[in-house]
Amino acid sequence: MRGTMPRGAGIEVNQQGHLVVGGVDVVDLAREYGTPLYVLDEGEFRKNCRVFREVFALYGDSQVIYASKTLSCLAVCAMVAQEGLGLDVVSGGELYTALKAGFPPERIFFHGNNKTDEELAMALQAGVGRIVVDNYFEMERLRIACQAAGRRQAVLLRITPGVEAHTHEYVRTGQIDSKFGFTLPTGDALQAVREALAAPELELTGLHCHIGSQIFEMESYAHATEVMADFLAEVHAATGVHLRELNMGGGFGIRYVEGDTPDRPERWANAVMTTLRARLDHLGLPMPKVIVEPGRAIAGPAGITVYTVGSSKHIPGVRRYVAVDGGMTDNPRPALYGSRYEAVIANRMREAADEMVSVAGRCCESGDMLLWDVRLPSPQAGDLLVTFATGAYNYSMSSNYNRIPRPAMVLVGDGRAELIVRRESYEDLIRNDLLPERLKGPCPAESA
Amino acid sequence: MRGTMPRGAGIEVNQQGHLVVGGVDVVDLAREYGTPLYVLDEGEFRKNCRVFREVFALYGDSQVIYASKTLSCLAVCAMVAQEGLGLDVVSGGELYTALKAGFPPERIFFHGNNKTDEELAMALQAGVGRIVVDNYFEMERLRIACQAAGRRQAVLLRITPGVEAHTHEYVRTGQIDSKFGFTLPTGDALQAVREALAAPELELTGLHCHIGSQIFEMESYAHATEVMADFLAEVHAATGVHLRELNMGGGFGIRYVEGDTPDRPERWANAVMTTLRARLDHLGLPMPKVIVEPGRAIAGPAGITVYTVGSSKHIPGVRRYVAVDGGMTDNPRPALYGSRYEAVIANRMREAADEMVSVAGRCCESGDMLLWDVRLPSPQAGDLLVTFATGAYNYSMSSNYNRIPRPAMVLVGDGRAELIVRRESYEDLIRNDLLPERLKGPCPAESA
Repeated sequence: MRGTMPRGAGIEVNQQGHLVVGGVDVVDLAREYGTPLYVLDEGEFRKNCRVFREVFALYGDSQVIYASKTLSCLAVCAMVAQEGLGLDVVSGGELYTALKAGFPPERIFFHGNNKTDEELAMALQAGVGRIVVDNYFEMERLRIACQAAGRRQAVLLRITPGVEAHTHEYVRTGQIDSKFGFTLPTGDALQAVREALAAPELELTGLHCHIGSQIFEMESYAHATEVMADFLAEVHAATGVHLRELNMGGGFGIRYVEGDTPDRPERWANAVMTTLRARLDHLGLPMPKVIVEPGRAIAGPAGITVYTVGSSKHIPGVRRYVAVDGGMTDNPRPALYGSRYEAVIANRMREAADEMVSVAGRCCESGDMLLWDVRLPSPQAGDLLVTFATGAYNYSMSSNYNRIPRPAMVLVGDGRAELIVRRESYEDLIRNDLLPERLKGPCPAESA
Repeated sequence: MRGTMPRGAGIEVNQQGHLVVGGVDVVDLAREYGTPLYVLDEGEFRKNCRVFREVFALYGDSQVIYASKTLSCLAVCAMVAQEGLGLDVVSGGELYTALKAGFPPERIFFHGNNKTDEELAMALQAGVGRIVVDNYFEMERLRIACQAAGRRQAVLLRITPGVEAHTHEYVRTGQIDSKFGFTLPTGDALQAVREALAAPELELTGLHCHIGSQIFEMESYAHATEVMADFLAEVHAATGVHLRELNMGGGFGIRYVEGDTPDRPERWANAVMTTLRARLDHLGLPMPKVIVEPGRAIAGPAGITVYTVGSSKHIPGVRRYVAVDGGMTDNPRPALYGSRYEAVIANRMREAADEMVSVAGRCCESGDMLLWDVRLPSPQAGDLLVTFATGAYNYSMSSNYNRIPRPAMVLVGDGRAELIVRRESYEDLIRNDLLPERLKGPCPAESA
């Protein structure tokens, strides 16, 4: 027993009893780059890219696009490009990052429920492959932007299918009461298809839906696929048009803690592709190209976070709190969603996990708790505590709350480590601050 | 009816029916600085500083220190210095910001449950007035740091009094099961006092406690004050020492929405000072200097956030979603705590609030909802939506989730506006990114 952690190809324990990721000793990483530290396992990240591409390709014409909101930086976008995936961006900032990384714009999908005019113009200028139109207002603004740019844009329409995945309320997006997309059951979606087909500035290539996140039940995907297949038939019946692309979104669940039961990627591909083919065959319609958008399932398992243990506090009969040098600033998911993680002490991997502790972050906020009631080899000051599956929605959601600089990120693989995001400096925190001259005066209290 | 908003000296409506803050038309601010935009009302901020200082001074020797975790930037620290308050910092980053703003170090209190060795050394080097020691580990590290720096440091001990304030779980810190402080009821606190008094490197000037946040019931403060007074007596009985400072923390509640019933600052001062004097008189002990740490109550009401309305989506029989150009990235409190806010349409203040809408943020996340079911004059694209009481825990907790740049902040007063935090640029988002050469290669998929 040594705490719990996922079994992964890139995760080992060396002779010194240290955790090794991507062939690199985590103790060495902490010494060289400091903590807290995000570590991204290149082999795992690339493997996940390939797995999703391969399992969907087995079933026919398909495209896997990486949801960059889960983790975006230059190096990550560049790896995704090398792996031949597409990229899902949800803002001008994500698009900017992708373009700066040299990502081929024609493989970029631009999502979002409230893209600004500036972002639409930026996307047209860049020549992104698809803009996923979320609502009528955006369709109108995009037409105007296309006219201004003298460009016709290929688009998908985001459809809200009215399917609920069984998952946390915050990350459930397919039900009718959603801020996203054109509602299918109310007839809104068909009307939107008619309008997009009638717009000379837009080339409607297909439909998009997204039923939620961290989904373990492939039946949810199968059900949503049937609903979308039926809608493709409805569109054909009403307009005579065979839409040639169907984007079934992302949301494929991953393991955070023991008891999480993610399915195999093959089963996702099967649920979508086989269901779709059967339904469309039955309806006498051709198969579209199928697009999926895994993000968490690619980046999540590839990331760990390394913290240094500092203070601790034993309250007899209650619990022992152990504090680390990070927390809700680098990983807000426990505070936001009550998310749980597995953890180990990276420098003492062979020791028995014989103590139950709760791991606190360093923010001045009671809610800044990283782990409640986890078993570890009794953590001591200076120990390196590692949490797993932090590749997604950690760096991307990080903040400077309490003016804590954001951690560095290193890419590891084949025994090599490379810095891909530098640690923020104190100077970074005030880079955009301006101090008006009149505020520099002496303190009234002191001059009085 | 025009939506709801707080009545405040700095908030008016002009002849064009526009919201005016600090004498400046919010429509002009949006045009000049863009949106989303944080606006800080200098008059309100300074007034709040003064009110707390004055009401506590009425009752005797006291010091008000501003909790900079609520809102910290150079201009804010400089204003706090000018108002003669002390400053509570909880990290090296907050200390760095204060020092760069020219804040007198002797008026700085350094808090935190897990200060690093680097931060302790930095605080000693700067000559901060007080370090609030949270736990035994830190006491030991601080002694070592003092030895290294050749300096004796004035300290308070953070005590967990075992008093629960009635408030949200995440922001309740006085109960026994807390990551913060030395526990009073277990005898831990007295032991810590003995150790601190015995440490030649430390000058124990007093005690600190903090019972929670957003507190409306002054009885909570009175109760905690009695507990701490009794402990001062216990310390005197056990050690012969009269501790000369008592820091009762912060947590004074403010109005976010109608129905919130914050008390008057006078009542806080009365609850603490009168209770303390009565109890200590009864015990035959002298009054210590009383310190309090309002943060939210100073910065919160002084801030508003200005958004531009973009897309909207009407779901018949369900609701109308209206999206703005910000959300959980600039204000994570609704997602974190379910917090509610009041809102108006700043460019149509005289129109009837005749529609019930829900206001969505622009993040690709269902949980990114700013306001549920608020009455507003039917919001249209291009309208300016303003939320109130966003001065605290908005900018300070903001993130770049979805790679959305953080808003600018302007300081307004006497009809004048000054930029105090520049809007983040896309370039800022990748400033610390590094792209290894080998990742720049052609995509395998393209060269294949």
